[in-house]
Amino acid sequence: MKKIITVITICFSFLGLQAQELKSPNGDLEMKFSLQENGTPAYQLFYKGEEVIKTSTLGLELKDDETSLISGFEISDSKTSNFDETWTPVWGETAEIRNHYNELAITLEQTSAERRMIIRFRMFNDGLGFRYEFPQQKNLVYFVIKEEHTQFAMTGDHTAYWLPGDYDSQEYDYTTSKLSEISSKFDEAWVGNASQTQFSKSAVQTSLMMKTEDGIYINLHEAALKEYSLMNLNLDENSLVFESWLTPDALGNKGYLQAPAISPWRTIMVSDGATDILASNITLNLNEPNKIEDTSWIKPMKYVGVWWEMITGKSTWNYTDEYPSVKLGETDFENAEPNGKHGATTEHVKEYIDFAAENGFDGVLVEGWNVGWEDWIGNSKDYVFDFVTPYPDFDVEGIQEYAEAKGVQMIMHHETSSAIRNYERHLDTAYQFMNKYGYPAVKSGYVGDIIPRGEHHYGQWAINHFLYAVKKAADYNIMVNAHEAVRPTGLRRTWPNLIGNESARGTEFQAFGGSKPNHVTILPFTRLIGGPMDYTPGIFEMDISKINPDNNSHVNSTLANQLALYVTMYSPLQMAADLPENYKRFPDAFQFIKDVALDWDESNYLEAEPGEYITVARKAKGTENWFVGNVNGTTPRTSKIKLDFLEDGKKYEATIYADAKDAHYKANPQAYKITKKTVTSKSTLKLTSAPGGGYAISIFEKE
Amino acid sequence: MKKIITVITICFSFLGLQAQELKSPNGDLEMKFSLQENGTPAYQLFYKGEEVIKTSTLGLELKDDETSLISGFEISDSKTSNFDETWTPVWGETAEIRNHYNELAITLEQTSAERRMIIRFRMFNDGLGFRYEFPQQKNLVYFVIKEEHTQFAMTGDHTAYWLPGDYDSQEYDYTTSKLSEISSKFDEAWVGNASQTQFSKSAVQTSLMMKTEDGIYINLHEAALKEYSLMNLNLDENSLVFESWLTPDALGNKGYLQAPAISPWRTIMVSDGATDILASNITLNLNEPNKIEDTSWIKPMKYVGVWWEMITGKSTWNYTDEYPSVKLGETDFENAEPNGKHGATTEHVKEYIDFAAENGFDGVLVEGWNVGWEDWIGNSKDYVFDFVTPYPDFDVEGIQEYAEAKGVQMIMHHETSSAIRNYERHLDTAYQFMNKYGYPAVKSGYVGDIIPRGEHHYGQWAINHFLYAVKKAADYNIMVNAHEAVRPTGLRRTWPNLIGNESARGTEFQAFGGSKPNHVTILPFTRLIGGPMDYTPGIFEMDISKINPDNNSHVNSTLANQLALYVTMYSPLQMAADLPENYKRFPDAFQFIKDVALDWDESNYLEAEPGEYITVARKAKGTENWFVGNVNGTTPRTSKIKLDFLEDGKKYEATIYADAKDAHYKANPQAYKITKKTVTSKSTLKLTSAPGGGYAISIFEKE
Repeated sequence: MKKIITVITICFSFLGLQAQELKSPNGDLEMKFSLQENGTPAYQLFYKGEEVIKTSTLGLELKDDETSLISGFEISDSKTSNFDETWTPVWGETAEIRNHYNELAITLEQTSAERRMIIRFRMFNDGLGFRYEFPQQKNLVYFVIKEEHTQFAMTGDHTAYWLPGDYDSQEYDYTTSKLSEISSKFDEAWVGNASQTQFSKSAVQTSLMMKTEDGIYINLHEAALKEYSLMNLNLDENSLVFESWLTPDALGNKGYLQAPAISPWRTIMVSDGATDILASNITLNLNEPNKIEDTSWIKPMKYVGVWWEMITGKSTWNYTDEYPSVKLGETDFENAEPNGKHGATTEHVKEYIDFAAENGFDGVLVEGWNVGWEDWIGNSKDYVFDFVTPYPDFDVEGIQEYAEAKGVQMIMHHETSSAIRNYERHLDTAYQFMNKYGYPAVKSGYVGDIIPRGEHHYGQWAINHFLYAVKKAADYNIMVNAHEAVRPTGLRRTWPNLIGNESARGTEFQAFGGSKPNHVTILPFTRLIGGPMDYTPGIFEMDISKINPDNNSHVNSTLANQLALYVTMYSPLQMAADLPENYKRFPDAFQFIKDVALDWDESNYLEAEPGEYITVARKAKGTENWFVGNVNGTTPRTSKIKLDFLEDGKKYEATIYADAKDAHYKANPQAYKITKKTVTSKSTLKLTSAPGGGYAISIFEKE
Repeated sequence: MKKIITVITICFSFLGLQAQELKSPNGDLEMKFSLQENGTPAYQLFYKGEEVIKTSTLGLELKDDETSLISGFEISDSKTSNFDETWTPVWGETAEIRNHYNELAITLEQTSAERRMIIRFRMFNDGLGFRYEFPQQKNLVYFVIKEEHTQFAMTGDHTAYWLPGDYDSQEYDYTTSKLSEISSKFDEAWVGNASQTQFSKSAVQTSLMMKTEDGIYINLHEAALKEYSLMNLNLDENSLVFESWLTPDALGNKGYLQAPAISPWRTIMVSDGATDILASNITLNLNEPNKIEDTSWIKPMKYVGVWWEMITGKSTWNYTDEYPSVKLGETDFENAEPNGKHGATTEHVKEYIDFAAENGFDGVLVEGWNVGWEDWIGNSKDYVFDFVTPYPDFDVEGIQEYAEAKGVQMIMHHETSSAIRNYERHLDTAYQFMNKYGYPAVKSGYVGDIIPRGEHHYGQWAINHFLYAVKKAADYNIMVNAHEAVRPTGLRRTWPNLIGNESARGTEFQAFGGSKPNHVTILPFTRLIGGPMDYTPGIFEMDISKINPDNNSHVNSTLANQLALYVTMYSPLQMAADLPENYKRFPDAFQFIKDVALDWDESNYLEAEPGEYITVARKAKGTENWFVGNVNGTTPRTSKIKLDFLEDGKKYEATIYADAKDAHYKANPQAYKITKKTVTSKSTLKLTSAPGGGYAISIFEKE
């Protein structure tokens, strides 16, 4: 690990400078810090000489505290330093990650209250991060945040790719609009969800992707969100200033801190190249290094599962329809009348294990294996699951033996129904059960309103729980893929057993009415800035009525686009989500899913435009093989890509899975063509993507 | 176990009877059930032909439910039965308890909503119990209680002995007043507490003790409170009708139920003899039988402890004053500067172990042994204790060995600071720690506002937790003594490892300013109706400034009264709470504490008047020995007691510990005299009790 640290300490006198500057290592970005008239801290950001963030104030409003931490400050100290280190993630888009920044830490003193706060800025070549720090001190010990007042003052009415602000759900389609249009389009964006809470018609979620009229890309997010409440962004439509709006608890308070404490990092990525945003490592670099000593049990997984058939409505999670409700430990499941549509049966699971084994998949996920699904949703049920009692038709041990014999691993499912106390009460026994029966990973879910009632998914309380579950899982050598949990903010650097989250609108919504065809060209600019997404792609049958005649939903994507997602939607956990029978209908296309890697030495974002297209090439870890993926929005488009990332002098065989000429995500989604050709580092490919289309390429070194 | 069950089933037609009657086995009590005009259920209670409860309506208001469960009912079924069984408690005031009642179960149907509810009445010779039942049915599955509307319509402006209604604390002095004076005296009653929430100036807590002008005693309480919210009573001052007022959760909802479900029993004890109220077993009889198979590890305990010195302020729970706050796992306690006043040091604890061993005590409680006490209160701190990490000066293993060698057991202390999630996260390891180091019992505490914030001590959420902790303790063969938890309602019959609660204003308040001198003459009529109280009596030094010069509090009790409490304040867990040095000053008086038993074959309440006096005689289990206790209010009083409970023909030696002639709880509390005399079943004793005084008598069979 290369590490160059230079520390330059410059101390300023108490009565001294009111303005400070910080530049990125390459000088393109410059931050100017200042104190406003009343001693309110503020910052301003320039990119290549042009203002990209207007003077924006900082600070926090405290409950029952007249002074708060907003004004009346003086600069009492100022330290600059720089840092340049390359580190190795356990898994990731690249084998190594360079962490290179200049830092400015400003200590602010409130003379009246005799308190101090530090704001630490880190400037990278692709953006700025900053956080608040509350050192241990006499006059700031325990304090309650009423609201954080961090501003991001926009320089113009930018185009934004946004989700409506919500304390409980992220499962929306993106709206692309001007900032000034957000409030008028808010209601249209706000579609129903099992748990959702709006608070302002001009609020949006992070990460927020924007593009200025001048073609500058700006992304706002946070990094290392823990022991704190999640930040939404609320827009003042007159001034076009975003301000942080934290998520409240049941009492309306927005955070309980004990000094010494730190806030999460607020991040601002800036570039004139969209691909720079996608390639940025700011989020990870602002997180603490890996805390897990032995990571040998943490492995990317390609999996199939008993899931899509329930999502489409063909099968059920629940075993019986006989009772209006069930009580764990009391309801007789053994003698209940099976509804005949239960997905998670031993026999059916074995079919999936066979399919996985035949096709080189690592794992099989099974949902609906455990008692409680009869009334799991919409009832605010506390003791909803115990995570260890299977239905009568799910033979835990038999399946374990069968899977082991076939060299396939079982992936556990813990739907919590957001009953957090119940999940924590069962967590140790649930994880022990996984160890005993050989489940190395768990997909957890938090569908429905949080219990304790009054709390929100993104409040400090639930955020503490999500990390608690991940840390405890690490004690059991268990990997966690948490759905409906808080959107990631890079904690996976510190806890690499957090191998995935959904925490956005995933593939399941294609069976719930469909998502916008350009959805997947936005997600990497927004949701994936914080971490990988278990998007569960690979749908080959777009007409859901073919699976369940009562479901008229349509998957708004071509088949080639579905293949591309394995490359464009980065995740160490990748599902081939469709039913095996649909894969069997298109074995040639399925080959790509079998071939694609999960872990990478290099990732080159070749071209990208939010909402329009993303093309990325990735080198499979420890090999000379490459995979390329392109996803396209609603406009047909031809991309010309140079394969100059290949090694000079080598020959490769490229297999190109592309949209057929007349492909279209709605009218003709399954029209694809596969071509093979020999390529070298000098090759160029010209490929046309359909509306909602794309292409996937595997490039294998030729012997 | 004698068991006589007679079941007489009488079915009424759907269009039939609107009125029903139920009498007690001896016929003294009669309940009349009726439906009001709009189909609202109501009951009325008569005692020896006189109305004691006027027609009072019943029902529950449901959230988001137009019909609710209040009106529109018809009687669709009615079943009567009777029950007569004698059962054996694991520990108690008597060796056997007779459970003898007549029952009436009325099924009510709401034709419009197609729903039904059952109200089950059980009439004992000393009172009535009734509860709501919600059978499994199609149209009532999951429902939220907005409010329960159970009325108790008083027949007059009775004298009441009451505590102000509170969602979080029971630690008040009793106010004795007319019902009509409650609201005018509410604010005076409402003294400060670490966690308290008022909601109505005319609300009171249960059990509520009353006396009518005609000398009829009435007590209102609940039995078997679990999976439900606690009932307060709110008085309509015009009609003198009490109505149930449940405790809300963070959202204001008062209960989440899933049919089949039951409410707790609402109990009304009635007698013209005050001692009947004290002797009543209705609360226990309405609870489910014991669920613990092997109860050999459940044993009453007499204990001393490192506690009073901290309560008086002489010592501290915390180890150091060096930090403004501490963080478990981060703060360096090893190298912190000890404050020199830490109570729980190895050396000091060994002194207590020695004292316990020398004097035949079973156990030693130690508070302040574990890290976290530096900032445990008033900070809404979540991760406040881990229940396993001792301070540097508390040698867990050393103390264990020392105690074992001396034949003394250690009693654990778990102050939770009401951080419930934190306690539950550590519960298994905390109990395992107890098993490992030989702690058979734990005193738990819930000081401060409940976390999850917004919940209350007596809401359904916390009530679920309290029982969860007790049930889990049973898995570990651990006895629980829960302070600041919900007041007991007889669950100890089902979970006999719940050996105590404080959940009222205990002896500690004598060091916080003092309690009313007649406090202990009311508590058995109110708080102890639900279960035993760990009152921790035995204070010999009433002038607290002698222990801590900065504390001018005075214990408003004579020494003889303190001895009597071991008999009058029933508890299987009894502490000699004062400092050993104070016991050493009065070894002759201390002898009574050493002699008094903890478990009983028989208990005879000889005479009683709430607020004035209680005299009770109890026979020590498995012996021929008896103990008598009298506590007196503020008026000097002579009691004449017959010892006709002794066995005829036997001689006994009675040692009488009484107030001296000039004793007074304030002016001369330590004036006592001890006399010995031979007594028989024909003896009568005439003893005078001082204001705030009393007497204690040990009666040992003479060889």
